[in-house]
Amino acid sequence: MGIKPIRTALKVDFSKPVWEQPGFHVRSSIHMNSLLLSSSTDQITTQNRWHPDIPVCGTIANNEIVKIECVDWTGGQIKNNDSADDVKNVDLTRVHYLTGPFKIETAEPGDVLLVEIQDVQPFDNQPWGFTGVFDKKNGGGFLDDLYPEAAKAIWDFEGIFCSSRHIPHVRFPGLIHPGILGCAPSAEVLAEWNRRESELIAANTQDRVVALAPQPLNAYAGDTDEEATAKVGKEGARTIPGRPENGGNCDIKNLSRGSKVYLPVHVFGAKFSVGDLHFSEGDGEISFCGAIEMAGIITIKFTVIKDGMAQMGMKSPIYLPGPVEPHYGPGRYLTFEGFSVDEHGKQHFLDATVAYRQTCLRTIEYLHRYGYSDYQIYLLLSCAPIQGHIAGIVDIPNACTTLGLPMDIFDFDIRPEIPPVRIDMGNCAFTSDRMQS
Amino acid sequence: MGIKPIRTALKVDFSKPVWEQPGFHVRSSIHMNSLLLSSSTDQITTQNRWHPDIPVCGTIANNEIVKIECVDWTGGQIKNNDSADDVKNVDLTRVHYLTGPFKIETAEPGDVLLVEIQDVQPFDNQPWGFTGVFDKKNGGGFLDDLYPEAAKAIWDFEGIFCSSRHIPHVRFPGLIHPGILGCAPSAEVLAEWNRRESELIAANTQDRVVALAPQPLNAYAGDTDEEATAKVGKEGARTIPGRPENGGNCDIKNLSRGSKVYLPVHVFGAKFSVGDLHFSEGDGEISFCGAIEMAGIITIKFTVIKDGMAQMGMKSPIYLPGPVEPHYGPGRYLTFEGFSVDEHGKQHFLDATVAYRQTCLRTIEYLHRYGYSDYQIYLLLSCAPIQGHIAGIVDIPNACTTLGLPMDIFDFDIRPEIPPVRIDMGNCAFTSDRMQS
Amino acid sequence: MGIKPIRTALKVDFSKPVWEQPGFHVRSSIHMNSLLLSSSTDQITTQNRWHPDIPVCGTIANNEIVKIECVDWTGGQIKNNDSADDVKNVDLTRVHYLTGPFKIETAEPGDVLLVEIQDVQPFDNQPWGFTGVFDKKNGGGFLDDLYPEAAKAIWDFEGIFCSSRHIPHVRFPGLIHPGILGCAPSAEVLAEWNRRESELIAANTQDRVVALAPQPLNAYAGDTDEEATAKVGKEGARTIPGRPENGGNCDIKNLSRGSKVYLPVHVFGAKFSVGDLHFSEGDGEISFCGAIEMAGIITIKFTVIKDGMAQMGMKSPIYLPGPVEPHYGPGRYLTFEGFSVDEHGKQHFLDATVAYRQTCLRTIEYLHRYGYSDYQIYLLLSCAPIQGHIAGIVDIPNACTTLGLPMDIFDFDIRPEIPPVRIDMGNCAFTSDRMQS
Amino acid sequence: MGIKPIRTALKVDFSKPVWEQPGFHVRSSIHMNSLLLSSSTDQITTQNRWHPDIPVCGTIANNEIVKIECVDWTGGQIKNNDSADDVKNVDLTRVHYLTGPFKIETAEPGDVLLVEIQDVQPFDNQPWGFTGVFDKKNGGGFLDDLYPEAAKAIWDFEGIFCSSRHIPHVRFPGLIHPGILGCAPSAEVLAEWNRRESELIAANTQDRVVALAPQPLNAYAGDTDEEATAKVGKEGARTIPGRPENGGNCDIKNLSRGSKVYLPVHVFGAKFSVGDLHFSEGDGEISFCGAIEMAGIITIKFTVIKDGMAQMGMKSPIYLPGPVEPHYGPGRYLTFEGFSVDEHGKQHFLDATVAYRQTCLRTIEYLHRYGYSDYQIYLLLSCAPIQGHIAGIVDIPNACTTLGLPMDIFDFDIRPEIPPVRIDMGNCAFTSDRMQS
Repeated sequence: MGIKPIRTALKVDFSKPVWEQPGFHVRSSIHMNSLLLSSSTDQITTQNRWHPDIPVCGTIANNEIVKIECVDWTGGQIKNNDSADDVKNVDLTRVHYLTGPFKIETAEPGDVLLVEIQDVQPFDNQPWGFTGVFDKKNGGGFLDDLYPEAAKAIWDFEGIFCSSRHIPHVRFPGLIHPGILGCAPSAEVLAEWNRRESELIAANTQDRVVALAPQPLNAYAGDTDEEATAKVGKEGARTIPGRPENGGNCDIKNLSRGSKVYLPVHVFGAKFSVGDLHFSEGDGEISFCGAIEMAGIITIKFTVIKDGMAQMGMKSPIYLPGPVEPHYGPGRYLTFEGFSVDEHGKQHFLDATVAYRQTCLRTIEYLHRYGYSDYQIYLLLSCAPIQGHIAGIVDIPNACTTLGLPMDIFDFDIRPEIPPVRIDMGNCAFTSDRMQS
Repeated sequence: MGIKPIRTALKVDFSKPVWEQPGFHVRSSIHMNSLLLSSSTDQITTQNRWHPDIPVCGTIANNEIVKIECVDWTGGQIKNNDSADDVKNVDLTRVHYLTGPFKIETAEPGDVLLVEIQDVQPFDNQPWGFTGVFDKKNGGGFLDDLYPEAAKAIWDFEGIFCSSRHIPHVRFPGLIHPGILGCAPSAEVLAEWNRRESELIAANTQDRVVALAPQPLNAYAGDTDEEATAKVGKEGARTIPGRPENGGNCDIKNLSRGSKVYLPVHVFGAKFSVGDLHFSEGDGEISFCGAIEMAGIITIKFTVIKDGMAQMGMKSPIYLPGPVEPHYGPGRYLTFEGFSVDEHGKQHFLDATVAYRQTCLRTIEYLHRYGYSDYQIYLLLSCAPIQGHIAGIVDIPNACTTLGLPMDIFDFDIRPEIPPVRIDMGNCAFTSDRMQS
Repeated sequence: MGIKPIRTALKVDFSKPVWEQPGFHVRSSIHMNSLLLSSSTDQITTQNRWHPDIPVCGTIANNEIVKIECVDWTGGQIKNNDSADDVKNVDLTRVHYLTGPFKIETAEPGDVLLVEIQDVQPFDNQPWGFTGVFDKKNGGGFLDDLYPEAAKAIWDFEGIFCSSRHIPHVRFPGLIHPGILGCAPSAEVLAEWNRRESELIAANTQDRVVALAPQPLNAYAGDTDEEATAKVGKEGARTIPGRPENGGNCDIKNLSRGSKVYLPVHVFGAKFSVGDLHFSEGDGEISFCGAIEMAGIITIKFTVIKDGMAQMGMKSPIYLPGPVEPHYGPGRYLTFEGFSVDEHGKQHFLDATVAYRQTCLRTIEYLHRYGYSDYQIYLLLSCAPIQGHIAGIVDIPNACTTLGLPMDIFDFDIRPEIPPVRIDMGNCAFTSDRMQS
Repeated sequence: MGIKPIRTALKVDFSKPVWEQPGFHVRSSIHMNSLLLSSSTDQITTQNRWHPDIPVCGTIANNEIVKIECVDWTGGQIKNNDSADDVKNVDLTRVHYLTGPFKIETAEPGDVLLVEIQDVQPFDNQPWGFTGVFDKKNGGGFLDDLYPEAAKAIWDFEGIFCSSRHIPHVRFPGLIHPGILGCAPSAEVLAEWNRRESELIAANTQDRVVALAPQPLNAYAGDTDEEATAKVGKEGARTIPGRPENGGNCDIKNLSRGSKVYLPVHVFGAKFSVGDLHFSEGDGEISFCGAIEMAGIITIKFTVIKDGMAQMGMKSPIYLPGPVEPHYGPGRYLTFEGFSVDEHGKQHFLDATVAYRQTCLRTIEYLHRYGYSDYQIYLLLSCAPIQGHIAGIVDIPNACTTLGLPMDIFDFDIRPEIPPVRIDMGNCAFTSDRMQS
């Protein structure tokens, strides 16, 4: 009977730096404005690695609905201002700051954890987010050969809509979602991750980072001792990337309000973590820091499906999107085609990655005609709700991908038959170096 | 005033073999039951190569709406029966049989040809189509390492719906479309195609065909002399694959009724061709002969946009889908995730092709539980209106792709929380060799 | 095995007048260009009344899919020209010309007949339809107090799209459907219809026709003798209106391709009839002859659900729409509000009919600003896929209804914030009297 | 630069009764737990009548986005418990409690006020709402002849979803919206309202209330003197119903997040008010207190369109819905038909109100088979996102309306071909009288 407010499983305390709070083992002196602590339990509620030994920060009952607060994925390193210096100098050893792990009662290895996302909201007092292009030498992105410099756009949230002073004349509702959610790997799963990723690193001949090995620096393992933290730092899988066994940083834009996600359980209690909240994202999240990144609150219902992995034949997560995705009608998506011939005229063999890169470039060329800078469009395609499809993957040697751009996010008419009129679009934020030159 | 029926620009004559008809230069003795002739003009209306010298078979006015008849892409090689022998032995030097090229009045290089697809229909007396898995040694497909044998499913058309005796318990409306449409390349564009694809062939070290070089055998060039035909055979680009400069065999399922396609024009008169009609296709068309292939009639409105390529900044086609795509609601797509770790546990670097292959395998494993054979599901995913998305392409080293399967095409409940019940699903058609063994 | 074309249950013969064909009992000398005969069986296949004694014209098996051909509802009285004289003088004693009744094998009273509409198509050689405003004195319509004169628009079909020389600058895909489908009434149901409608007629004090009593003149009863025909003429219910017991002339625009309609069965064999095909219609079909009326072919799958009426608690038909309705996105419907205060300032009590009339008038006023005549808009709202909703029905004394107009059917921008520019819209067809004056 | 939180134009103070707060002129001794005061300005922020003389409670700039807090429409009279006594005894002289009127800068008579709804949210600490059936003698409802007793369902909000202990096995996302928004009438408009509604009252011969005359009892007029309050009480229009000139209590479920509403301005400063927030509502809101009524916060952007009424030809509000409405696909709406023949067998003439009542009854009969009580279904149809359409309004004498019920809100399968299984559904809340008997 009566009012039953939803329990907040963990709260974020933005009032003081993490190291001034009880129970936190300081391993860094960076000044952060966003840290993740349990205000009610004094337990540390963060982790930034995947490891089965990270202790749980809270317990959630089977069939319970809870609210979980999350900081933004960088832990507050990026500010609401007009310089991309913070993006250029971001410390990626610290990311992603996740909330968890939570013990889900009754969950055992082999079960499936059904995660129903009831809502995702930004904090009322932080109605903004950011989209960044990383410097090619510190993070990079999908188009870093062409756009190697850091850039940034700040987005203001106006209810379910957002707009940016850095990318004018667009406005859209967010397809709000977590970029990361998943259960902890078992020791065996973790060992497999380290095996295969280290093999890729060892075989690398490119002049770029191809995967992130375990990194003790700035590894957090929650409320545990130094020895355990050191173990997590040495063995723990980085939160970049998503992986088939637990989903993790899958960055799927459709895991939004109302979606049901079915996650494999690898350890007792599931040890579920979530974070990297996005106000919006485009398929591919192409600039890497490409969604509209934000701090916020996610409301989740948890249900354990016993022996679900065998029953569903599950090796990777599956999901059902929710019924409230923005919908414009198919005829409102201006769609660009790209093929696996790169910008140097080289023919690749059924390479959907190359094709999607070309598809993005075709879209940039098109939108450039209205007065946007390439970096503005690069940022926009990263975070607006674009639809990236694999259209053809068998007609040798060309893969074909498409990118559907919702025309209704612009306040001017972008149909092809309408001759473009250039508008003064200002620009996105760049680094102080670039702006002075 | 009065009734203005739409002109049929070209008709297909199924009544007699092509070589018995005037104006056709026989270069083959294969017995075909479907050949493409202009019944009204006695001009040969087919081509199966891209080349600027292939003579036009008809003229269409700017702003005109016409109907164009097309044979199936194999020219009738595949029969409505329960053996995949025809698929196994298909002659791929002959494909694709396209209708065209048509001269579009007033079109010049640099223009854009707006192609509005008013309708696509199968022939009333051929209410069926086929989906095939090619033999790995003759065509292959996206999953040919795992499924190397030929297989086939025949689909019966019941109005806008289709069903198959070879894949029971599914039924869906077609997202009917042409797999190929485009304007002829200029000599320069053609030369570029040959350069880059021959380089790929020359560099190939895989034990598989990576691209198709020009092939004089069975090349048709329409109503022209032997010398010109020989030139087309020697230089003409194969209709497999699609290419960025003209789209061609892009196999985009959304170019369906009501869509508007904006095509670059490279030669005077555009020389537009169309063919490879599909009753339905899934993103990727993964089994290669993967759509529901059919003969039929396409109704198109043509509009020339002068100097459109410069005005639109166009390097590749763009399009707007139509407003009548089947729509199920986002919450009705059961969606599978895949990452760029292959089935041997090898980690690939941001390879969306590998990720999509894994996504398909996850779906096959899931549907297998209901009693379908792997080949049945492979065929189904090729032709049912599945949504293949590039979800994440920046979280090194894992690309993440998704595959959305519309649950409403099944007549049983495939939601994950419902324990599966195995059904006797029969099987698809295989070759006579396999069926005897 | 092999090709299984769908059987055409009944064909329309347009080649000669009905009275020159065997088996037809001529009761009229009107010259018609469209009459409905079974070309294969020489049985008369039409009826234009509902009566249990009308003999069946064909038999359809349970679970069978058949094609059924239909004339337009007036039997060809309306021509493709630019005069509304035919509309003004239409003979409404003859309508509607239905195809049927068909015996559905195994169907008995108390069963439910599941009618799955696989497709609806116009005839290839009749790619046009008409929308009419009836003269107030011969048929009338929803707004006949304001628009009492006859008017007409001819629509050309271009694939799934239509456009009209009489209402320029609009174009839309059809939500194609039958205006009438249903099973025959039992004698008891028919008696109830006659009782209640005759009571309404008897109590009528308005200066207008409120219901149509049985009308022997021009009643057809199929292939039967004069006595039986006289009985049908004397007792048979008019096909205007739809009625709760069998649906009939429900004029529901969403009974389109892919829809499943569950119909009560009142007599042995169901005696199913269908007709009044519409290429498109707006909610309300406000001008009465308001859909885009056409002749054509409907493909239906029939399934008998034994004892379905009791099982479903069914008193009136229910249905599931199909998955291929045109969809524009909710934000693309410009929506008008209307309340139950009439144009004379009179307050009505929760009268949704009055409210919807006002809603239509608000829409006419809005579109009038672009240069359309009121009659053009009246015709357009009758046949374009507008959404008419009952929004509020309890806030005494005002009912509130809404009318959603899809903006994407216009080739100019009708958003409210864009100042309107008047265009020369020509006009719809009027009667020769009016055009001379 | 930097964070720009959205200003809250007015806040609700739930901490103390309204009469203990400065500036409120107490005219009632009812104990209420929800009253509407400006916590920052000490001005009274409520009104419950429409009158041009009610003083403004705040000022909003043109193009400003603000948050506005609202109590529930009854001012807290209905409690979160399991008795419908509060519903039975509700004091309707007090309703609706609106927030406003606000002066919108630059707005003048003849302008149009564009109201963009950015978001609507319940209060975090009040995550629940209610749906009620009024007693026939105190309020009544659409089906009060059949369901004359008071009843109630409490809904718990779980993120964007809601469920009810009183109506189990349903769960759906809210199409959250304000039931009332509008600008104040001018004196002339108000006089017209009073004229026409008093005429209806004077002519009434039914045994029911047909309209609400001005009611001094419990009229609030904001922060003004007794004389002015008395004038408002004597002349002010009741907030029930909506009216064509300003919209008001239109109860249109689609005025949800992202919608743009164009409102006529009748007085200087517009004097905009809003309230009656609904978490969800079905077309018709049939039980009168039929939406899921709640207190909450609405975020709105205001834009003045100068001289908009003439430019738009506007007599009543128009709107564009937002792009995030729940969407299930058309094939997921089980749809019921109803005609204007009432449950006593009486034939009405094109009466859409009678038809819609029958449509609702058909739906109740259908859902009853699963074990729900009629009152539970009556409540459910009032608040779940059902689609009520006017299908046919011209086929004399039967109007036909339809009701589309989204099947996906149920956790069991309600398709007609699935035989129903009765479930123990408990019941909704009734009055203590009824429950004792």
